[in-house]
Amino acid sequence: MLYRILDYAHHLLEQSIAPGETALDGTAGNGHDTVFLSKLVGDKGNVLSFDIQEQAIESTHDRLVEHNIHNVNLIMDNHAHFKKYIDEDAVLGGAIFNLGYLPGSDKTIVTEAASTLEAVHGILDRLKKKGLLILVVYHGHEGGQEEKEALLKSLSKLDQKQYNVLRYGFLNQVNTPPFILAIEKK
Amino acid sequence: MLYRILDYAHHLLEQSIAPGETALDGTAGNGHDTVFLSKLVGDKGNVLSFDIQEQAIESTHDRLVEHNIHNVNLIMDNHAHFKKYIDEDAVLGGAIFNLGYLPGSDKTIVTEAASTLEAVHGILDRLKKKGLLILVVYHGHEGGQEEKEALLKSLSKLDQKQYNVLRYGFLNQVNTPPFILAIEKK
Repeated sequence: MLYRILDYAHHLLEQSIAPGETALDGTAGNGHDTVFLSKLVGDKGNVLSFDIQEQAIESTHDRLVEHNIHNVNLIMDNHAHFKKYIDEDAVLGGAIFNLGYLPGSDKTIVTEAASTLEAVHGILDRLKKKGLLILVVYHGHEGGQEEKEALLKSLSKLDQKQYNVLRYGFLNQVNTPPFILAIEKK
Repeated sequence: MLYRILDYAHHLLEQSIAPGETALDGTAGNGHDTVFLSKLVGDKGNVLSFDIQEQAIESTHDRLVEHNIHNVNLIMDNHAHFKKYIDEDAVLGGAIFNLGYLPGSDKTIVTEAASTLEAVHGILDRLKKKGLLILVVYHGHEGGQEEKEALLKSLSKLDQKQYNVLRYGFLNQVNTPPFILAIEKK
């Protein structure tokens, strides 16, 4: 009934991304979201998928091969540099980031507020009207609390005439569960 | 795309309340939610609608007459006493509370954490499986902050094996906008 966190993220993207668009996965991780986006944009669309870790790029690459997917540009670079990889006038249909560390990997390699926010603001500039940027915020790890606070502070200041910033999360779960910040461009 | 607060509250109730069920409006106010619930449960269902203010009971009564509605039991009493008005074995299909003061009325008459929580826990006992209790939390008025904090603290402790407690709200709006707490019985 009430969507779980990851299902809600996908539900929102499904409703807002159309075939033929360009979508962005800021944190390829194990490739699940990249595959999901690839299906949403279809053969005529494309996905830019970033990760700074070789392990993530390899996992995602394997998953793309397994699913016979050819519309993804898999990039080993910081997502804050995404503009280097798209046309100047390209418009993004939607984007998703999983903030925290790569599941099953070195927990010391984590996303950080400064580069996350640089990427977020850059993507918002390029996002289509009614498009969504979804942040799934994991914050139980070391430094996670700081990243979360910095994000909340910065995104609370986005002009409500231009953006809606939704927070969606469950209160009564143990182990600092992730929550969603969904930014909608008006 | 992203549901506004009141639309989201109705969207959730629409998905969870079935015709023929008993629904509860804890704060009749101007009668909008009571009318909405009345339509969801239909002729074979019924709605219990509470308010402690005569002005709210009158407004809601007028609205029921206007819509030719006959499946509502409109009760001038504290919602914490709801058990007096239903059968001992009655099951609730869903419930909604707007917490704060009656729009357009005396702002000193507000819902308060103690009686709200008494009502909330009583309703959860009677709620059907997969049913939802929705709290729309207005907290900009005097005492609103205290009620909000008390609610968050208490509902965060609900056993996650029995309930999901979702918080849904927008971060970047001026004037302390309301948010939703949606409690789903597992």
